[in-house]
Amino acid sequence: MYSKEVMRALENADVREGDKVCVRASGGEYEGLLLPRAELGGENCLVLKLDSGYNVGVEFSAGSEVELVERGKPLVFQSSDFNVSVVGGKPRVSILGCGGTIASRIEYKTGAVFPAFSPGDLLSFAPELKDIASIDCRKLFSLLSEDMTPKHWQVIAREVAVEVKKGVEGIVLMHGTDTMSYTSAALSFMLQNLPVPVVLVGSQRSSDRGSSDNAVNLVCAVLAAQSNFAGVGVCMHVNMNDDYCFLHEGTRVRKLHTSRRDAFKSVNVSPLAKIDYSGRKVEFLRDAVKRDERRRVEVDDKMNENVFLLYTYPGVKPEFVEKLDCFDGVVVAGTGLGHVPTNPFDDEFAQSIVPSLKGLVEKGIPVVIAPQTIYGRIDLNVYTAGRMLKEIGVIGDGCDWLPETALVKLMWALGHVKKVEKVRELMVKNVAGEVSERSPVIEEERGE
Amino acid sequence: MYSKEVMRALENADVREGDKVCVRASGGEYEGLLLPRAELGGENCLVLKLDSGYNVGVEFSAGSEVELVERGKPLVFQSSDFNVSVVGGKPRVSILGCGGTIASRIEYKTGAVFPAFSPGDLLSFAPELKDIASIDCRKLFSLLSEDMTPKHWQVIAREVAVEVKKGVEGIVLMHGTDTMSYTSAALSFMLQNLPVPVVLVGSQRSSDRGSSDNAVNLVCAVLAAQSNFAGVGVCMHVNMNDDYCFLHEGTRVRKLHTSRRDAFKSVNVSPLAKIDYSGRKVEFLRDAVKRDERRRVEVDDKMNENVFLLYTYPGVKPEFVEKLDCFDGVVVAGTGLGHVPTNPFDDEFAQSIVPSLKGLVEKGIPVVIAPQTIYGRIDLNVYTAGRMLKEIGVIGDGCDWLPETALVKLMWALGHVKKVEKVRELMVKNVAGEVSERSPVIEEERGE
Repeated sequence: MYSKEVMRALENADVREGDKVCVRASGGEYEGLLLPRAELGGENCLVLKLDSGYNVGVEFSAGSEVELVERGKPLVFQSSDFNVSVVGGKPRVSILGCGGTIASRIEYKTGAVFPAFSPGDLLSFAPELKDIASIDCRKLFSLLSEDMTPKHWQVIAREVAVEVKKGVEGIVLMHGTDTMSYTSAALSFMLQNLPVPVVLVGSQRSSDRGSSDNAVNLVCAVLAAQSNFAGVGVCMHVNMNDDYCFLHEGTRVRKLHTSRRDAFKSVNVSPLAKIDYSGRKVEFLRDAVKRDERRRVEVDDKMNENVFLLYTYPGVKPEFVEKLDCFDGVVVAGTGLGHVPTNPFDDEFAQSIVPSLKGLVEKGIPVVIAPQTIYGRIDLNVYTAGRMLKEIGVIGDGCDWLPETALVKLMWALGHVKKVEKVRELMVKNVAGEVSERSPVIEEERGE
Repeated sequence: MYSKEVMRALENADVREGDKVCVRASGGEYEGLLLPRAELGGENCLVLKLDSGYNVGVEFSAGSEVELVERGKPLVFQSSDFNVSVVGGKPRVSILGCGGTIASRIEYKTGAVFPAFSPGDLLSFAPELKDIASIDCRKLFSLLSEDMTPKHWQVIAREVAVEVKKGVEGIVLMHGTDTMSYTSAALSFMLQNLPVPVVLVGSQRSSDRGSSDNAVNLVCAVLAAQSNFAGVGVCMHVNMNDDYCFLHEGTRVRKLHTSRRDAFKSVNVSPLAKIDYSGRKVEFLRDAVKRDERRRVEVDDKMNENVFLLYTYPGVKPEFVEKLDCFDGVVVAGTGLGHVPTNPFDDEFAQSIVPSLKGLVEKGIPVVIAPQTIYGRIDLNVYTAGRMLKEIGVIGDGCDWLPETALVKLMWALGHVKKVEKVRELMVKNVAGEVSERSPVIEEERGE
């Protein structure tokens, strides 16, 4: 409930939720759509959706004023606890909720953010959705994404397939950003022959913060889910100023900043598409698999999650690497082109881990190499260290995959085959865009 | 030795090493300084230094022509096996060689690159050095940098101090790029109160390749070593087109591409300086510690290398994290703002690793958190997962360090103190620019 003062001001101004209003408060003057009161917000807080797509919370105090600018449509939805449907003449998009900041609010008692939203609530912060799609929402989990496991990926894959089979135009998955790219890689391998887009979306700032990107991201994701694309993508904010998002390929994206809205980057490839929030347009930036409703999705979700990811470093211990034989597979994020300590010149201080890795391979544990530089391609032919790894049967020469994508793929490959040679065949074969033969020419990284 | 055909052509044209020549071959026409013949190169290969600073190898075959453009100074040095001095009126710079691609040639038999250069050879590929400094070269190791260990860092720190005490203008360290940023971080902690610059430099392409960046990088590093700066920096190529380098702060730089010349990036800060190869100019981009020859360098190189770096991932196993008690310290590269699986909502699939980490801390093993996103700052106050880590005593809340820098610093801190609380004090205190209280406003990452 609002405070008496706020209630009175809204009544006097004849303002209801959904109306376009102008609020003058000590913090400044704001014009936007009055959203439903945030349950956990202060009783004097008016939440406005600005034309830019951002929501802003305005503290209403003595001397503040509110004025009706334009009567809006009432914001009424068919809402149950966790599910909501908005039916209209627009293309159908299913939204599945997994939790994360995009579905979070601040708990004012402690100041911590926790996933308290039902997906149904999303229309309260992004009412413009009803103008672009008929939406079905369903909540799968309320998880912080750092708690996602390969078992959750399997549930998501199956539930996405259920939605696909309903014949929807596309599926949006609301997901925490921490491990979003692991999930998008997993779904890329698990969901084969997809006829339509499956778009993961998250938010770097929760909906109660003025700078939240959740509405813009979600609207762009719903647009991407209706675009002429089939496969798994991640839709996230491009930068800190502009109102557009990129659609990244599910196996080629990584979170590269703890907190910035532009944290997600395509690695070693261009993004698939640019999505203009205000123009409601999807512009493809390179060739992508096109939607084709005749395809029948196949869920191929067998996984073996008993896999380890080792980022090597100076002083990494051979005897510790030997202990990794408790895993069924190991991804080594090596230095440079894919190197580990090999000590070919018998330096007195250096300690090779090649014998330890060889021991793993000989026990039937596949060892996969990926670059800890994040960007670039493994090449085991240039230096001695690479050649030694190739000789002992390390998998991944020539691959330009992310360490995290290689990890997820190894879990998936080990769900299908066990023998090192079979795993190798499956690993180096491009399944979902995770490896390419040649690197596209991508515009330079920013130099500073 | 050159082939008879090449010898004859050079004789006929009255061309000697050091002359400016024009070579017309099937690959095109090149004008540049004729460098000494590469020992391991083909007998028909002429190596020219172009005006751009790049060296190019030109295959001389039937129909090729060579012409004298301008008589040059003879390239003669006082060279012993591993050491060389070029004495003149210029400021003295010491170059220490540790190996790496910058000191490598291709072994033509196998096609592999290996560190075969003595630092004395460097003047053969960068003769312009003698115009900008009086140089003393000394070889410390011939290592591929993936074989560097904390023990090598100690040797380097002591040897750098020896050079500093000679009163030189600055020190350049030729180093492989794979682990260069680990070494630069280590030296940043070990070398305190530096009066002059210590500049690490490497090359992403070996000197026998047309596109080698070694001469440009080395010349820029020698310029940086003479600049008005004191501390440890990394000097590497900025991009693929222009002839300049950045000087990066030693604790704030990371190799972010396997092979590109612009692989090195400053993370969470701007580079210290921009160094113009052709203009021979160093332009500082932000405040830096200034040189002050009155300072006395202190070598503080105690290290405990029994430390592990764990990049967490979905499905990371609590029972494996428990096994990390064989280490004296653990850096956890968590997801997002510094998260690990915590399972606060008792999800049936999720498995918290917090009890395992708590077990480590209770055994007196410091656990440090860093961001696997590479960019950004740890914040353990926003989400439940962060708060749980803070409660069990994980170190690093508010720190904007790189995982690899945190690892090196933990090795260094554990060389000095043992108790978790003492380690914490030392870790969160800024020693060498590795943590800052506020993030500078850095221009956006490239959006695509």
